[in-house]
Amino acid sequence: KKKFNLAVLPGDGIGPEVMQEGYKILNILKTKCHINFIINEYDIGGIAIDKYGIPLPKNTLLGCKNSDAILLGSVGGPKWNNIPDEKKPERGALLPLRKYFNLFANIRPAILYPELVDLSPLRQNIINSGIDILCIRELTGGIYFGKSNRKIDPKLGEFAFDTEIYYKYEIQKIAKIAFEISKQRKKKIISIDKSNVLESSKLWKNTVEMISKKYPEIKLSHLYVDNAVMQIIKNPNQFDIILCPNLFGDIISDELAAITGSIGMLPSASLNNENFGLYEPAGGSAPDIQGKNIANPIAQILSIALLLRYSMNLYELSDIIFQSVKIALKKGYRTFDISNNKKDYVTTNEMGDIISQIF
Amino acid sequence: KKKFNLAVLPGDGIGPEVMQEGYKILNILKTKCHINFIINEYDIGGIAIDKYGIPLPKNTLLGCKNSDAILLGSVGGPKWNNIPDEKKPERGALLPLRKYFNLFANIRPAILYPELVDLSPLRQNIINSGIDILCIRELTGGIYFGKSNRKIDPKLGEFAFDTEIYYKYEIQKIAKIAFEISKQRKKKIISIDKSNVLESSKLWKNTVEMISKKYPEIKLSHLYVDNAVMQIIKNPNQFDIILCPNLFGDIISDELAAITGSIGMLPSASLNNENFGLYEPAGGSAPDIQGKNIANPIAQILSIALLLRYSMNLYELSDIIFQSVKIALKKGYRTFDISNNKKDYVTTNEMGDIISQIF
Ligand SMILES: CC(C)[C@H](C(=O)O)[C@@H](O)C(=O)O
Ligand SMILES: CC(C)[C@H](C(=O)O)[C@@H](O)C(=O)O
Repeated sequence: KKKFNLAVLPGDGIGPEVMQEGYKILNILKTKCHINFIINEYDIGGIAIDKYGIPLPKNTLLGCKNSDAILLGSVGGPKWNNIPDEKKPERGALLPLRKYFNLFANIRPAILYPELVDLSPLRQNIINSGIDILCIRELTGGIYFGKSNRKIDPKLGEFAFDTEIYYKYEIQKIAKIAFEISKQRKKKIISIDKSNVLESSKLWKNTVEMISKKYPEIKLSHLYVDNAVMQIIKNPNQFDIILCPNLFGDIISDELAAITGSIGMLPSASLNNENFGLYEPAGGSAPDIQGKNIANPIAQILSIALLLRYSMNLYELSDIIFQSVKIALKKGYRTFDISNNKKDYVTTNEMGDIISQIF
Repeated sequence: KKKFNLAVLPGDGIGPEVMQEGYKILNILKTKCHINFIINEYDIGGIAIDKYGIPLPKNTLLGCKNSDAILLGSVGGPKWNNIPDEKKPERGALLPLRKYFNLFANIRPAILYPELVDLSPLRQNIINSGIDILCIRELTGGIYFGKSNRKIDPKLGEFAFDTEIYYKYEIQKIAKIAFEISKQRKKKIISIDKSNVLESSKLWKNTVEMISKKYPEIKLSHLYVDNAVMQIIKNPNQFDIILCPNLFGDIISDELAAITGSIGMLPSASLNNENFGLYEPAGGSAPDIQGKNIANPIAQILSIALLLRYSMNLYELSDIIFQSVKIALKKGYRTFDISNNKKDYVTTNEMGDIISQIF
């Protein structure tokens, strides 16, 4: 069997704890499914700052470079709040990783299982039996990486600017990903822009339209970002795939997570064009619950499911992990964050064991 | 009594209908409260395109210029969808008006009255007895008015860009408005930015912090826009005033409208530094219900309440209009959009009459 090199970056906060549960799944994949994972761990984020003074040490970057994929826990925490933004765990590690490996496609499923509909902050009659939306966010362009500066104008005083910039080829690339993935789903894409105001959004909209001509079986429509944010609250199930430029995707994907009411369950994949990907929980490092054995390991476990799907093309195995999680929920197992009464819940470890046993 | 020149711009869709109900209130203000309104009507939006070929005719602009405030209905509709964005009713009339009159402060109350909590898409236990948040959006700066273009790079091909740009003085101006208004509310401001990524956001955050030093009695905190969008869904009542740059304010104010579930009730004020303001319903022109006598006139009526407050400093009269609306709701009167069973509802005209009688 071909070797698969996996760089594991547990990071900060609950990262290392939930990664332990991820390891349980990785072990089963190794021993029972005979997947030849070669695993190396590296420091990232706050822990790397503490050890080496920077959030993304050379050794970590090199390790990732020599791997076929990255499995990340989470980074950041109040301990590193007073560091300048550029050097903070989130900004100083995540953005450079995205850019370095050209991880232009961020894929975030927003799933609310029927068993958990009570968790949604939205009324039951709005979400009905659940939510299943896929947010596809462009991740290496737009205002995150355009020219920016702070200056002083002799007349008007201090000012600062950022540039939202999109090349047509960047939009084409992410749009293609969306249309390809859409074939396996409901064949319905809603693309987000602010084309009534922004030039970059007009190019975005036109280019997505152009790509759509090659996919006549897929229904494309467009929404302004302000309207989209309303529609997601009013009637989320009108959406299947939501395709977004970087900044709008940052906002929309978090809104989608919020309406599921269970961010501890949501994984995220960031891909380039060579099947290389970074896989991580969508939620943060949650330092307030660190070390208490109450964090939800499901997002970390499902990020391994995404790894199997998007970097290894092992669709069936990926689905089996999703199924295992569903079965655990059906059987009534809940971690603290998703438990109804905040009494009858299983620990982080226990949830990892339960899912492993089902799997 | 001093004359007050009011430019009335009914516009498109339901604009003219709800403005008729606005007139009922204006008449009472004239006859019973002896406010000396001099009212002139002008065309704007689609109807102006149809008549004169442009959404903001010179005559309309001149009329507004000779007035002390503008009362707008709404603009836009499918009829004008195929016009280039710059010339469309929304973009071609609203943005130039904002810029021309330097209407840098957009004020949008998101109010959900206890009587209407069932309208919210959020669960009752999240909104409790209602919502009362004020969104203050910078309206003449940021990415809406920065340099933008579409070009071709000889190597990388076609691209387009927009510039998010903020001058410190612009941020100071809007922040001051927020702090002043906060004195009359819960003394709590949450400022929105993406300062972990954007230079303009860093300047935004720093400048708001600086202004806050002059208001030690007011509690200021900051949220990244992605987190804010989540928090508004999870726990809206943690917010009192939300202060936003232009683009984020566009998104956040619409999200707030969505969680009230009753956009037909929400007014909006856009102010400059000389008490001049544009007052309008926050919702759109709703062409689908045009002419059916079912549109909700409350947003239009409350926009007159905002006019009294912000352009005329008539706080008491303004409050009385808000009270009249509340009483109408308490008495059980509902227009179609906010009625529970979609059967026992009053028409647009009737609601205007009911509120007028109470007032
Ligand atoms: C930490 C921050 C730079 C990052 C982003 O805005 O992309 C985060 O919000 C995310 O969505 O991964
Ligand atoms: C029509 C559009 C240009 C406008 C905006 O984005 O400002 C609208 O969404 C609004 O919020 O008034």
